[in-house]
Amino acid sequence: MSTRTPVARLRAHVGATVTIAGWVHRRRVLKSVTFLVVRDRSGTAQAVFGEPPEVTEETVVRLTGRVTDNPRAPHGVELTDPELEILCTPARRPPFDLYRPEVPATLPTVLDHAAFALRHPLLRKRFELAAASVAAFRAALDDRAFTEIHTPKIVATATESGANLFRLDYFGRPAYLAQSPQLFKQAMVGVFERVYEVGPVFRAEPHDTARHLAQYTSLDAEFGFITDHRDVMAVLRDVVAAMAEAAGPAAPAVPSPIPAVDFGAAQELLARHTGEDPRGEPDLSPAHERWLGAWAEREHGSAYLFVTGYPMAKRPFYTEPDPADPARSNSFDLLFRGLELVTGGQRRHRYSDYLAVLGDSAGQYADYLTAFAHGMPPHGGFAIGLERWVAQVLGVTNIRGTTLFPRDLHRLRP
Amino acid sequence: MSTRTPVARLRAHVGATVTIAGWVHRRRVLKSVTFLVVRDRSGTAQAVFGEPPEVTEETVVRLTGRVTDNPRAPHGVELTDPELEILCTPARRPPFDLYRPEVPATLPTVLDHAAFALRHPLLRKRFELAAASVAAFRAALDDRAFTEIHTPKIVATATESGANLFRLDYFGRPAYLAQSPQLFKQAMVGVFERVYEVGPVFRAEPHDTARHLAQYTSLDAEFGFITDHRDVMAVLRDVVAAMAEAAGPAAPAVPSPIPAVDFGAAQELLARHTGEDPRGEPDLSPAHERWLGAWAEREHGSAYLFVTGYPMAKRPFYTEPDPADPARSNSFDLLFRGLELVTGGQRRHRYSDYLAVLGDSAGQYADYLTAFAHGMPPHGGFAIGLERWVAQVLGVTNIRGTTLFPRDLHRLRP
Repeated sequence: MSTRTPVARLRAHVGATVTIAGWVHRRRVLKSVTFLVVRDRSGTAQAVFGEPPEVTEETVVRLTGRVTDNPRAPHGVELTDPELEILCTPARRPPFDLYRPEVPATLPTVLDHAAFALRHPLLRKRFELAAASVAAFRAALDDRAFTEIHTPKIVATATESGANLFRLDYFGRPAYLAQSPQLFKQAMVGVFERVYEVGPVFRAEPHDTARHLAQYTSLDAEFGFITDHRDVMAVLRDVVAAMAEAAGPAAPAVPSPIPAVDFGAAQELLARHTGEDPRGEPDLSPAHERWLGAWAEREHGSAYLFVTGYPMAKRPFYTEPDPADPARSNSFDLLFRGLELVTGGQRRHRYSDYLAVLGDSAGQYADYLTAFAHGMPPHGGFAIGLERWVAQVLGVTNIRGTTLFPRDLHRLRP
Repeated sequence: MSTRTPVARLRAHVGATVTIAGWVHRRRVLKSVTFLVVRDRSGTAQAVFGEPPEVTEETVVRLTGRVTDNPRAPHGVELTDPELEILCTPARRPPFDLYRPEVPATLPTVLDHAAFALRHPLLRKRFELAAASVAAFRAALDDRAFTEIHTPKIVATATESGANLFRLDYFGRPAYLAQSPQLFKQAMVGVFERVYEVGPVFRAEPHDTARHLAQYTSLDAEFGFITDHRDVMAVLRDVVAAMAEAAGPAAPAVPSPIPAVDFGAAQELLARHTGEDPRGEPDLSPAHERWLGAWAEREHGSAYLFVTGYPMAKRPFYTEPDPADPARSNSFDLLFRGLELVTGGQRRHRYSDYLAVLGDSAGQYADYLTAFAHGMPPHGGFAIGLERWVAQVLGVTNIRGTTLFPRDLHRLRP
């Protein structure tokens, strides 16, 4: 690899002759001078030519020139008298200009031309924020002696419910894409005590909404020897705090502890302050979550709000009930800016509880119940939707905008 | 969470009263005393009872007792006068003893009872080694300014070839499970320059061998602005060296550079020293790879060997040919102990080259070719099979033994 200076580090080389390489981000031909703005992974920098070089935008180039102070240049520095080498000439004209400060294209255009469009610095930044957030998720859990696992994405039975499953031809037999690593990660608590997995999950979402995808990246954690769901909330708080710190100033700081409101109390609040009376409903609507998000911001100065004690009726079968009120659960959602970002809670750990709750369908879960038959500690966990996290941090209204190549009801490409 | 001491740290608490929690790994009733060996994520420790407590192996317990020096106890320390609390009683008897130093069960038994069997310390250790290796893979690439990405696992077209694809019902349309993130990671070189992905890949392998799975974990990397495949080999060498260091003493040290042999020269060696003459063959057989692995060990004292310059005939369409001999490729395999662990190389980066090589099938790759149409630097990358890595490090002969829940022609569960 020939030596190359990232353009963001040019300032450290003023007076020296260096080589940079990247894409022609912008070509500006003025009367007596031509600027090429060159983009690489670190940023952009300007090179100055007397004669306009014969290159179009997105040409891949290598430039060797002198790093020169120029207070009027972006970042105060530019490359002068550059020698230009063309590494690759584009075969097609850009569908839109990458150098505009805002993305000059609609979401469908961006998605259709993803491999090109993601080169826009604003779009690329979303995925750098995602990568930093995932690294922080892992680091926070590594610090707590969690073990990373990789579980099957092809399964013989549904994990959550029979709905929204993608069906597969598995060597002539029916199989399904895993909707979550839930049952595997629980089983692995019996082995490693504390586990996490970062991986794709699949939902055959029949609805075309701004917040659902057919595939998304789930940040899953599960751990044993807890007292109840509050231990899970405490670990989650620290994990999200680490993610927020890694995501930078766009992510609001995470209070310690995150304010929490019981499901029943949340319904009381909604009944008292909104025109509606949701009491008796088993779940919160998206509009109610938004209202609660605004309420947490107002009352607690927090962008984050735990809602605890959801009715068992709407929680999956592996949820541990509240010992004081078996109609309520030891589970929670974490709302971030009024959107459900995380679902979690304490899980059932007694084999007999699973047999009782599953009834006739226990047989189809026999493999997964093995872990519980052989002794499992009280445990719990959570799952964070990565694309939702990034969308909420940056105020991106459609989750497709924080997915490299989204898959949905209508979109199977690019 | 009540305070709890990992059993491996008991030595630091001699004389104190502490609480430990875990599984009853072994129960030994002697004449005047009963030992419970308790296992947690950190290891095992012994607790001493006067009266035999009424617990079976794999009962989940919490013990509070005094940490006492005892040179005859494992690790020189034991818990005396313990108070015992049962957190969960197993519903089923263990299918085999977890406390035997070797795993007292065949591979099929282990796989059928995975959620139980993986509790055996020897088996668990394999996946701790896997987790440490993946962490090292990421850290090595993070240090080199790579960005982690997450790409679709549901695709409209094959990435490698039409064979071995799992077919899916995607909202009534046909779709496939991705055989690799290859084309996505290449496209993302146009955005981030340097990317990696750790994720599942899917192969509908019709053969039932000890080294093929329907799903495995691929450690993929791809980066731009290279001169040729040797730049890729140099980065790969450092990545594997980091993984070997993380894997501990079982992994042989990685020489710098790793010895490399040209494909033609490898065939000459095989013709000269084995009974066979593979010259003219477009690929190496597993037996030839084993012979070359032994040769590298003998001649270079290296468990690792690069084979370079494979014929284009057997490499995928995105492989860059050797400019000096277009029948040969700028690609390589990395053999580890005589098994192909990594495939990699320089990729084509010119749009016109893709059109020429794909011919009539260019249309079906139109989405992926977008990246190349808009200007791409010379680039290359590699993919490491995680389960193979762990198997070769630890001498596990069947790759199912280094997969938590393997999926193959016959196995879709647990």
